[in-house]
Formats: sequence, structure tokens, C-alpha cells
Amino acid sequence: MNCSDMSAKIKIECYFHDVMSNLVNLSDALSGVNDYFSPKVIEEVNSVYIKVAKILGEKVPWHTHDGEDEMFHVLSGKLKMEVEGMDPVMMGPGDIFVVKAGLLHRVSSEEECHIILIENKETQHTGSVESEITKSVEDQLQ
Amino acid sequence: MNCSDMSAKIKIECYFHDVMSNLVNLSDALSGVNDYFSPKVIEEVNSVYIKVAKILGEKVPWHTHDGEDEMFHVLSGKLKMEVEGMDPVMMGPGDIFVVKAGLLHRVSSEEECHIILIENKETQHTGSVESEITKSVEDQLQ
Repeated sequence: MNCSDMSAKIKIECYFHDVMSNLVNLSDALSGVNDYFSPKVIEEVNSVYIKVAKILGEKVPWHTHDGEDEMFHVLSGKLKMEVEGMDPVMMGPGDIFVVKAGLLHRVSSEEECHIILIENKETQHTGSVESEITKSVEDQLQ
Repeated sequence: MNCSDMSAKIKIECYFHDVMSNLVNLSDALSGVNDYFSPKVIEEVNSVYIKVAKILGEKVPWHTHDGEDEMFHVLSGKLKMEVEGMDPVMMGPGDIFVVKAGLLHRVSSEEECHIILIENKETQHTGSVESEITKSVEDQLQ
């Protein structure tokens, strides 16, 4: 590779770095998620993280997030949302549900469901409940 | 209506109030947006608002949000994202782009484009730039 080629290569790499560091495609991000119930941080916006996750089954335990809301946005499939004191809600693509701070809740799905989660950066995805699916925020950043 | 009917009616209304107060469908929310460049708040999650908007044309002025990130998520159509110092990025459905705090930017679209915006509650959508499309946060809550 001569200097001219190297210059062009660096220019192209810089271009993609600049542009791609801010652009995330949800399908691409989800294709990198191999496990169910394992949120992956794809972006940060001020004090919240934007995460994607795949849900299949009923392994999410009932839990709360004290003082912190949590938003669920269904991209594909159906998500059963259960909140203490409410009848279950079956969410479909394009549906958004905010679980208000402190409410006991859990989600499940009979078939694979893809979602976006929006939570404060410090929110634990299963609250203070430790279960087989619990991942630390650090794990979710990898 | 007798007491039994009234009881049933109240029960049904309470049920819908409880459930529907947390569930938002994006298509329904967008169908209530009549103007371009006029974000509408559909949810709040901790310190951020979730908004939907329709974009058509080039009326968004170049602007910044000092100290505040802003996230764009394209639901349908194509959005041209321009950020100072970067080549323009053409975003499509499922693409997410976070404009980091302080960066000069603007968005436009040649055909109607539907987006989700995530911003701090106090963020002005055209920053400190007043233009013909500028809406106050209070207007966006209506």
C-alpha cells in the first residue's frame, strides 16, 4: 500500500467512525443478541440507556425499580405485561408501556419478542431480585 | 341505568383507565399529529420525554442543545441527519441516531417521515433558535 492508498484508507475509516459512532440500526443490534432476557445497551441519551432485548418464556421474576420508571417498546412479537393490581396487557409491535417507579411487574412472551428498553443508567433490569437471568449493567454494556 | 349497570360501567371505565394510562400505540399517537415539525409528548420516563413527530421538508433550522443529548428514531420514511463536521447521514426505519450535547445539527426529509424523539424534559426542540416551527415544551404536551 502506498502513501496515497493509506491516506484514502484512513480517510474512509475516519468517515465511518464519525458517522457510525452515532448511527445504530435496531435489526443489526438485535442480531448481536444471542440470549433471551439479556438486555444490551445500544445508546445513551442524557441519564438513560437505550437497550434492546429478546424475550421468550417466563423467566423474568416479579420485581420493582424503586424511584425509577422503565419503558418497554415492542418491535416484533407479543409481550405480556403484568403489573400488580392491573389486568395483564398484551403488547404488540408499536406499543409502548411505561412501568411507573415502584410498581411490581414482570414481562413474558410465548414466542420470541424483540423490545427496546429505556431505563436510568443505574437501573438493575430485575430490580433488587436476583434470578437466573439477572445481568449487571456492566454486562449489558458489553 | 340501574345500580348494577352503573357498577359495571364504573368497573369497565376504571379498567380502561388503569390499563390505557400506561399503554401507548405509536401509530395511534402519530395519527393525532396534524402538523409537520411539531413534536408531541407521548410518555415520560424518569427525566426524559418520549415524543413523536412528522417531518417533511427543510424547516428545521441549524441548532444545538447545550449540555443535552437528543435521540432520533426513524419509524417510517427517510430522515436526513446533518451534524456539523460530518457528512450527512440518511436514516431509514429502525435507525437510531443520538446527537451528542452541543453539536450543531438539523434534520429534514423529502417525503413524510415519522420519528420518535427522546429528549430531556426541559429541552427546546430547536434549541435557542426561534423559527417558524418552534413549539414550546408546553405546546408539545397538549
